[in-house]
Amino acid sequence: MKKIKTAIVGATGYTGLELIKILLNHPYFEINELYSTEGGGDISDIYPSLKGVFEKEIKKAEIEEIAKNDLVFLAVPHKAAMSYVSELMRKDIKIVDFSADYRLNQKNYEDYYCPHTDPANLENAAYGLPEIFRDYIKNKKLIANPGCYPTATILGLYPFLDYIESDVFVDAKSGVSGAGKKLSETTHFVTDNENFFAYNPIKHRHSVEIAEKTGLNITFVPQLLPITRGMQISIYAKLKKDIEPLEVLTETYQNEEFIRIKNSPVRIKDVAGTHFCDIFAMKNNNMLFINSAIDNLLRGASSQAVANANILFDLPEGLGLPKIAYVP
Amino acid sequence: MKKIKTAIVGATGYTGLELIKILLNHPYFEINELYSTEGGGDISDIYPSLKGVFEKEIKKAEIEEIAKNDLVFLAVPHKAAMSYVSELMRKDIKIVDFSADYRLNQKNYEDYYCPHTDPANLENAAYGLPEIFRDYIKNKKLIANPGCYPTATILGLYPFLDYIESDVFVDAKSGVSGAGKKLSETTHFVTDNENFFAYNPIKHRHSVEIAEKTGLNITFVPQLLPITRGMQISIYAKLKKDIEPLEVLTETYQNEEFIRIKNSPVRIKDVAGTHFCDIFAMKNNNMLFINSAIDNLLRGASSQAVANANILFDLPEGLGLPKIAYVP
Amino acid sequence: MKKIKTAIVGATGYTGLELIKILLNHPYFEINELYSTEGGGDISDIYPSLKGVFEKEIKKAEIEEIAKNDLVFLAVPHKAAMSYVSELMRKDIKIVDFSADYRLNQKNYEDYYCPHTDPANLENAAYGLPEIFRDYIKNKKLIANPGCYPTATILGLYPFLDYIESDVFVDAKSGVSGAGKKLSETTHFVTDNENFFAYNPIKHRHSVEIAEKTGLNITFVPQLLPITRGMQISIYAKLKKDIEPLEVLTETYQNEEFIRIKNSPVRIKDVAGTHFCDIFAMKNNNMLFINSAIDNLLRGASSQAVANANILFDLPEGLGLPKIAYVP
Amino acid sequence: MKKIKTAIVGATGYTGLELIKILLNHPYFEINELYSTEGGGDISDIYPSLKGVFEKEIKKAEIEEIAKNDLVFLAVPHKAAMSYVSELMRKDIKIVDFSADYRLNQKNYEDYYCPHTDPANLENAAYGLPEIFRDYIKNKKLIANPGCYPTATILGLYPFLDYIESDVFVDAKSGVSGAGKKLSETTHFVTDNENFFAYNPIKHRHSVEIAEKTGLNITFVPQLLPITRGMQISIYAKLKKDIEPLEVLTETYQNEEFIRIKNSPVRIKDVAGTHFCDIFAMKNNNMLFINSAIDNLLRGASSQAVANANILFDLPEGLGLPKIAYVP
Repeated sequence: MKKIKTAIVGATGYTGLELIKILLNHPYFEINELYSTEGGGDISDIYPSLKGVFEKEIKKAEIEEIAKNDLVFLAVPHKAAMSYVSELMRKDIKIVDFSADYRLNQKNYEDYYCPHTDPANLENAAYGLPEIFRDYIKNKKLIANPGCYPTATILGLYPFLDYIESDVFVDAKSGVSGAGKKLSETTHFVTDNENFFAYNPIKHRHSVEIAEKTGLNITFVPQLLPITRGMQISIYAKLKKDIEPLEVLTETYQNEEFIRIKNSPVRIKDVAGTHFCDIFAMKNNNMLFINSAIDNLLRGASSQAVANANILFDLPEGLGLPKIAYVP
Repeated sequence: MKKIKTAIVGATGYTGLELIKILLNHPYFEINELYSTEGGGDISDIYPSLKGVFEKEIKKAEIEEIAKNDLVFLAVPHKAAMSYVSELMRKDIKIVDFSADYRLNQKNYEDYYCPHTDPANLENAAYGLPEIFRDYIKNKKLIANPGCYPTATILGLYPFLDYIESDVFVDAKSGVSGAGKKLSETTHFVTDNENFFAYNPIKHRHSVEIAEKTGLNITFVPQLLPITRGMQISIYAKLKKDIEPLEVLTETYQNEEFIRIKNSPVRIKDVAGTHFCDIFAMKNNNMLFINSAIDNLLRGASSQAVANANILFDLPEGLGLPKIAYVP
Repeated sequence: MKKIKTAIVGATGYTGLELIKILLNHPYFEINELYSTEGGGDISDIYPSLKGVFEKEIKKAEIEEIAKNDLVFLAVPHKAAMSYVSELMRKDIKIVDFSADYRLNQKNYEDYYCPHTDPANLENAAYGLPEIFRDYIKNKKLIANPGCYPTATILGLYPFLDYIESDVFVDAKSGVSGAGKKLSETTHFVTDNENFFAYNPIKHRHSVEIAEKTGLNITFVPQLLPITRGMQISIYAKLKKDIEPLEVLTETYQNEEFIRIKNSPVRIKDVAGTHFCDIFAMKNNNMLFINSAIDNLLRGASSQAVANANILFDLPEGLGLPKIAYVP
Repeated sequence: MKKIKTAIVGATGYTGLELIKILLNHPYFEINELYSTEGGGDISDIYPSLKGVFEKEIKKAEIEEIAKNDLVFLAVPHKAAMSYVSELMRKDIKIVDFSADYRLNQKNYEDYYCPHTDPANLENAAYGLPEIFRDYIKNKKLIANPGCYPTATILGLYPFLDYIESDVFVDAKSGVSGAGKKLSETTHFVTDNENFFAYNPIKHRHSVEIAEKTGLNITFVPQLLPITRGMQISIYAKLKKDIEPLEVLTETYQNEEFIRIKNSPVRIKDVAGTHFCDIFAMKNNNMLFINSAIDNLLRGASSQAVANANILFDLPEGLGLPKIAYVP
């Protein structure tokens, strides 16, 4: 099979870096170009760990140039993403968008983000959670790659949608890399180290993404863990009927290569560095506890993007996805 | 006022160390003796940070000797504690017990721990949460000092007891010092660092302590943070009536010196090193989120013990309690 | 004794915070005013751990106002400091300056920092390492409080000055708080966590401070530890004569309350939170290894400043200095 | 090419795990059997991150069974290793030994470890630092895989051996994984977190390994970093002649795929997860500072073992060695 010419727009962020790391081992997606808003510099100057491994100039993102690729990963902020998408969709290019721009219906999007400048393409996008939406993804050219919190939460909730009451509590914890490279008091070492705190509880934008996809009322509390990568979610809900949580999980996901049902609480270290989502569940009478873990930058962003791209190009869904964790 | 002769039984654990650190600055409680099961060695050999500050031999715990003190802090495991208590209660000695032995009613205790060998003294013990039970504490000689998880959880729930439905979810996170000095896979640096996981969910013994004191159905999930000290609790419940959470908190605690009502999520670093309990709460329609933080070894053990001892001896409740955090 | 009216200029940085924490327990130095360049806000809004402990407005630093105090701590950057000093020295005010402005001779200062605008006061300043210079300090009104690296290094080298050859290697490690509150890639959590690296080796400005005070040729390599506070120094040198390192240390420091001679390598945790400097030394034939540890923000800044102020006011040198470490 | 039947003896330690992770991606070395002293259990029960990736029973190590393989990695402690080696060497099996048993000459070994029970094979072993000894390695069947400290130190010193005086100081810092899975006070989270300390300075056994291979007098001080993996070394020495350190490094290593010459201090994060050794050097007049970093479990153990095995089987030396770091 011929190599697929691939561009990464927004290559200098953490998810751009993770994408590069995956694609270097992918048999078909060949990194043709790296782009950033300003362009300039070599990616291995920004991430010296790439020296001697992958050195490539970063170009200024111009739509004409980007459009010469077969596959475009957009790892840019919301709002910026839709300006690229609206133009790229006119050509026969496949797009995986890391931003929120095509994840929500227009109303929810505009309530939580900003006016949508490309509403016509909303219906052309598939929400890229392969385990749940792979049939939709297959037939699209534009994938709205889910956020890290929604990925871990929805994969946990999905098997139980028929069994729980609508009001669901999500206590979600993310490593600091989830906040990106931007300097802020929240990412200062002294702020996070030996600390732990919730931020933006209840009002965080990922809340509406989870609610829209599950149809549930979600009380969502994101919290910041003093670790670099990984995410763990605790979901609490009331059961409507008597079920065995582990059996329900197994029924739903037994054929999924990248979901592992655990019989004890999940641990971030077992998934950090991989595309796996580990899930555990148990109940206390009719109270349900669901517990999931992912690597926020991989399953919560870059490896999920590659899984979606694999589907778009009719490749085996798991091709090139990382399975070996950063342990011990 | 005359100094009060004080003994610490179980001086070599982390809570013993914290107790020593507090008592060194206490105007009346004078450390008369340190005891451990085996005795031997100087406390400053076990904790070299005490060299040049406080050096004292640790004696073998013999009931005759211990009984020569006015005040005894028992920082020993459950079961061991009640053997000391039953004998010390026959003399006019005031006791603060760090273990679970006198915290629960007999049935709960025996269901979750072991047969109780001193049930007669259960009714002679006060549960040592000063903000809630200070009037009981005053009239007792024996204090059952609460566990760290129950302290942070009950202080958070208490103002809302009339307003919430019985089924409550508690997502509780503790620093590793809560697991003590004992070597185990759970306290190995490589296990905890860059990791985060629940342990013993739903079945943890502190669950019953919270349930008994609040009368609620508790689904309790303790989790291990990769930090040394501090504890933060997220409590989720359904409201029975429309309230303003911060107003309810303020009404209940406005005159409490060691409870701080926050208008944004609590941070462990603001309380680590102190006796403070910081509490925040907000709602999502009729869903309530309560958020509290304490130092697990101080408010969750040793400084609370000193607060209780202050009450026992009719001293100002806050005497000698640490207020200045280990920041930045 | 009457309270001494004390001002902190530059109260909002980490060393300002540590100074406040110490002075809250000091019997004579009463915090009269807090100043910052811009002024505005309450110190407890910047550091919420101070809520309910110490709340005070921060005023804009105006020389007229500052001059109404008996004692001024200048916790401002170099260059800014000398502009205050030159004016305050005309009045009868005692000053402890945290900056480099009066630590070096004029040539060294101008080579490594910037032109000196107050050279006349250089001879009026004492270098504030009490163990070595307390007799000079006593007779001055202006103290140049040493940097953290020089403090830990000079205290380690001082006993051996007659026994070692001039070429000395200093491998120095500091916690991230040493880099201050300023946002930078170097203080981003993701940069430091699970990492370790030297910065500005050989050319770091503290190198010349150590060289000037010891008369030695110093090859100085500062490195950044993924911890919040504390500093540990390894010094390597060739011995000119056969000595027993621990005996030499003991001879020099046996009467010093805040220097502890260890017979095994020093540990940051034993000193973090205190004014102690722990020192260990051993040799490999004629090769000497000296190993010292301090709290970078206390002995390396704020508690040393208070020790110097105690001397200036003829108070016991150790008055109010913290001795109890942030363990476990 | 046919797959090479490979056994790992001592599969349950951290280096065994890392070896498995590498071999899963190696085109020729096929993991045929896993052994431990006692045998029993599945490797994915010990390391749950391997679930769904690699599940295999661990067998009891019996020499007859082990001898059925073409290649044996011995990841067992010293002393245990030589008992296997002496028997396996009688058959045509290639061995990479992770222990110290064949690294030193007999005298040094017996001075620092224990009596040698297989001295005859000492001359049959090559010291497995490929960049320096690859020609020897080629012609042997038994490789003494170097320790992590010697690897990082010798690779740093090697280019400068002709230019420095004999007395060399090595300030070496390792992540906690270097201490292995064994429970000890040194590996307790509370001991290491927010701490930093030297252990066994000057007398550490790796000191003699460095000295023997370089012919230098080494004053070696190992220190423990509060991170899981990675190692960074600072080497200090006096130059005998005027050289440009970076030029010397470049001359020596310019054709080495896995050594990267840096023009600023090395960072552990750039190498963690890879086989790279990053090296930087600079001088202060005639004082030399060499700075190297490796992943202690990979270049300091398991990936170096695979590099050596590649040479033994005439495969490209870099085959299957990890290059992509665990960043960000």
